[in-house]
Amino acid sequence: MRLSQFHLATVKEVPADAEITSHRLMLRAGMVRKLASGLYTWSPLGLRVLRKVEAVVREEMNRAGAIEMLMPSIQPKELWEETGRWEKFGNQLLKIKDRKEQEFCYGPTHEEVITDFARNELKSYKQLPINFYQIQTKFRDEIRPRFGVMRAREFLMKDAYSFHLTPESLNETYEVMYQAYSRIFTRLGLKFRAVQADTGAIGGNASHEFQVLADSGEDAIAFSDGSDYAANIEKAEALAPATARPAPAAALQRIDTPRVRTVEDTTAHFGTTPDRILKTVMVRGVNGLVALCLRGDHEINEIKAGKLAELPGDSVLASEEEILAATGTRPGFIGPVGLPDSIPVIVDRSAAVLADFICGGNANDTHYSGANWERDARITRVEDLRKVVAGDLSPDGQGVLHIARGIEVGHVFQLGQKYAEALKATVPDDQGKPQVMYMGCYGIGVSRIVAAAIEQRHDEAGMIWPEPMAPWRIAVCIINQRNIPAVTEAAEALYQQLSERGIETVLDDRGLRPGSMFADMELIGIPHRVVVSERGLAAGTLEYRARDQAENRTITIDELWALLG
Amino acid sequence: MRLSQFHLATVKEVPADAEITSHRLMLRAGMVRKLASGLYTWSPLGLRVLRKVEAVVREEMNRAGAIEMLMPSIQPKELWEETGRWEKFGNQLLKIKDRKEQEFCYGPTHEEVITDFARNELKSYKQLPINFYQIQTKFRDEIRPRFGVMRAREFLMKDAYSFHLTPESLNETYEVMYQAYSRIFTRLGLKFRAVQADTGAIGGNASHEFQVLADSGEDAIAFSDGSDYAANIEKAEALAPATARPAPAAALQRIDTPRVRTVEDTTAHFGTTPDRILKTVMVRGVNGLVALCLRGDHEINEIKAGKLAELPGDSVLASEEEILAATGTRPGFIGPVGLPDSIPVIVDRSAAVLADFICGGNANDTHYSGANWERDARITRVEDLRKVVAGDLSPDGQGVLHIARGIEVGHVFQLGQKYAEALKATVPDDQGKPQVMYMGCYGIGVSRIVAAAIEQRHDEAGMIWPEPMAPWRIAVCIINQRNIPAVTEAAEALYQQLSERGIETVLDDRGLRPGSMFADMELIGIPHRVVVSERGLAAGTLEYRARDQAENRTITIDELWALLG
Repeated sequence: MRLSQFHLATVKEVPADAEITSHRLMLRAGMVRKLASGLYTWSPLGLRVLRKVEAVVREEMNRAGAIEMLMPSIQPKELWEETGRWEKFGNQLLKIKDRKEQEFCYGPTHEEVITDFARNELKSYKQLPINFYQIQTKFRDEIRPRFGVMRAREFLMKDAYSFHLTPESLNETYEVMYQAYSRIFTRLGLKFRAVQADTGAIGGNASHEFQVLADSGEDAIAFSDGSDYAANIEKAEALAPATARPAPAAALQRIDTPRVRTVEDTTAHFGTTPDRILKTVMVRGVNGLVALCLRGDHEINEIKAGKLAELPGDSVLASEEEILAATGTRPGFIGPVGLPDSIPVIVDRSAAVLADFICGGNANDTHYSGANWERDARITRVEDLRKVVAGDLSPDGQGVLHIARGIEVGHVFQLGQKYAEALKATVPDDQGKPQVMYMGCYGIGVSRIVAAAIEQRHDEAGMIWPEPMAPWRIAVCIINQRNIPAVTEAAEALYQQLSERGIETVLDDRGLRPGSMFADMELIGIPHRVVVSERGLAAGTLEYRARDQAENRTITIDELWALLG
Repeated sequence: MRLSQFHLATVKEVPADAEITSHRLMLRAGMVRKLASGLYTWSPLGLRVLRKVEAVVREEMNRAGAIEMLMPSIQPKELWEETGRWEKFGNQLLKIKDRKEQEFCYGPTHEEVITDFARNELKSYKQLPINFYQIQTKFRDEIRPRFGVMRAREFLMKDAYSFHLTPESLNETYEVMYQAYSRIFTRLGLKFRAVQADTGAIGGNASHEFQVLADSGEDAIAFSDGSDYAANIEKAEALAPATARPAPAAALQRIDTPRVRTVEDTTAHFGTTPDRILKTVMVRGVNGLVALCLRGDHEINEIKAGKLAELPGDSVLASEEEILAATGTRPGFIGPVGLPDSIPVIVDRSAAVLADFICGGNANDTHYSGANWERDARITRVEDLRKVVAGDLSPDGQGVLHIARGIEVGHVFQLGQKYAEALKATVPDDQGKPQVMYMGCYGIGVSRIVAAAIEQRHDEAGMIWPEPMAPWRIAVCIINQRNIPAVTEAAEALYQQLSERGIETVLDDRGLRPGSMFADMELIGIPHRVVVSERGLAAGTLEYRARDQAENRTITIDELWALLG
């Protein structure tokens, strides 16, 4: 591509609402332009990158035996009522009325439509397993669209849905998809981890997220240094400490502690460390309040807490009023010693092995020291309640956990029979008896990958694309201030040679000053850059610079071919 | 592709609402499945064809210098208010409210969005001309979606928009697009004509439709047998007859003609031919009724009539009450002789050269014979009012016109400054003075082409794809009732050889009976078919059949390579 015939529109200034690096760089490079909140136009430059990602995803889905199709973006309300999601999906579902006042939505996902397709199309167990996919525009009416295409309302997604006669068959395809996803992100040149994920409201058994690692990522990931174990921090199990609870050594003592309300305050007041302190979190249970006890240095994992039988399915902190009414004590001074019997005391595994600990005094402005379980405070049950932290034992028993941040770009789910049951999607088995199918679903945020890659790979000057995602592999820049025809001809010849070898090349023939030209090529992250200049022409050399290296090199054309493989 | 790993689902029965051949065949072949009114899922088979069309369109757009980008499908109301189309577009515009009650539409077209993009992105006349395009899902809320994907509500469209400093530059790009479109339809293997079209409500100067020829087409096209002239029948000019009007020879005579109301009645009553009869059509003008006079064998062209200064922009027939009130005469007996002076008499060119003609008597149950212009009836103005008919002189003076039917699959427009003016899309010219840009727009109905091709090319057995659109170029069918391994191996080997030569091949390894297998391959229109069988294997031959030929041939493998080029 000759840049003079392309539309490259880099800009210096970006709006203040561009909060994250990828959003800022995509706007500066002119890859996307905002049309309205959460709606972005992909410029020619941006679309080149988006299509690269799309092509890799398509190739690997085809290789894995998935079959491409295309469903409408507009879906009728009736199908969503069959699964109950017309109401349950919430306000992210963009609801629409047509000219006849019939109701539709702009599909945020396609479980309903594909299951309807499958129940009509699949006539025999012999057609199973089968895995359909599409690459298509989705819409989710985010309450707060932000971060550019990272959390846009309209976005490009690859969604696949597999159908099975048995859970074993689902397991097999799930594994095939897991491997396909791993190949996709490997081929794209991204550092990623496949992590165990909570299946959440969507239900089902197994679930993995594919996370592109980036310090700015919204998700925290725990991974072992001694095995392949990796999980979303919401999901990662915190093992019980290997050591048993020591016997009590200290006597229980109530101490006046006015103004000592936080773990930090308590640590300072008692001259100790947070891991010797027990904190008590009061949440709303199905029958009144529930006390959750954790070590002072640990944080509650709300997903885990939400699954407790005593809780209504999610974990909501009790208000100061509720706590006062139930205990007579203000938050900050609650502890398990002497708590009313009506309040269950659920203790985290690590907190359950504490002895001689400090905790709230269950009376305003007091704490206990030397508290001990059983002797001083009852335990209703020990559970895994907390987020794992760096240094925890890996749940598979091999190595210890580290924490990294990531951006979710893919998700594979075993849905089981949830949707097939709701939509009565059955096939006759080998006895002719109708069987509700098992389903898997497999999503990739195609447009999100573009932003995630930038979050992972950038520097002060701009993006640093991995070659498979770069808009072009190499830039040929012309420096020719004296307008010498031989320089232009040499650049054109090199451009032709590169193109003939199938190397995607951009020729910067815009006639800019070298500084502006180089700044643009660095901003848009072209992996390789060569300069054709009068001086180089005389010497028979090119000035070469790799985007991810700090130094220019003078190379011959043969060295260039070697570099480009 | 091995059919056993694909999802081919042909069916025998199709719903009664599938009115046209392409819709019926697409349903029978399982290319599309209806989700809701005007909403279709493209099955794996259908999508293969759709993507073939898309790829050819993309290649030719790129070759013509257009630059691909991607705009959101959801567009904010504010932009559509700037052009006034939020109200004017009518009910085809699917209006949407988001969770914050802000209004949007699902884009039926993208003039507003691209012009907004251009006004923000284009900073200098030096960036012009520039031509952006996208291939993207559109939505038009048709009042009566029908004919399957031919008139669906959600459909795939290629839309391009060019920007220019001058009308001359617009002309040049328009010509480039015209040529690109011609190449696209030629490459796709379709018989088509580029016809002059009325620019209609969208405004602008030049406009051509690209029509795929098919007897079932909704549009009528006039084309010359002596030149390249072709036009939509709405647009085709009817020239004045070469001969002058003869002098009156007969005397005006009023004749009682009860029950003689139509041209047919009149022809029979007077024992003459319709071309000797003058019919008078009364329409609503801006100031009362207007009489339009045509020859009895000609039909009014409502587009042409609508452009008369006397009419309010469209042509609406007057009601019986209006006609009675204005003339005292019932419709069927109106004529220009003695019509009240307040009613303008606009006469079609062919009707204006009639002499001694028969027309309504301007009194109930009477006609005139021997009527003559000027002597008996006044002419307010002579105009071109009628639809051309086969045998008319070509408007370019070369040859005579023939009429064919077509399906509109592409449309190129010179929009002029309409949208750029409304949205204030300017660039500074070489004097630094802001200039409103000129625009062209160029659409192709990608999904519609699939249906149009079937309308043009099919027989009793099914579709007959041109090779560039076929889901696969060749089918390898296995007939192996005795399950001889050598037969299966030979078929597999042939499949491999074909695939290695880059020939898209489908291997029918489903183990169906030959009749069902051949019926499926014919229904889905695969251009070439070979059968690998025990008998052929022994003889070293293949049974070959071209989809568009009636006979099987026995050929060698070398003959097959020659056939496939």
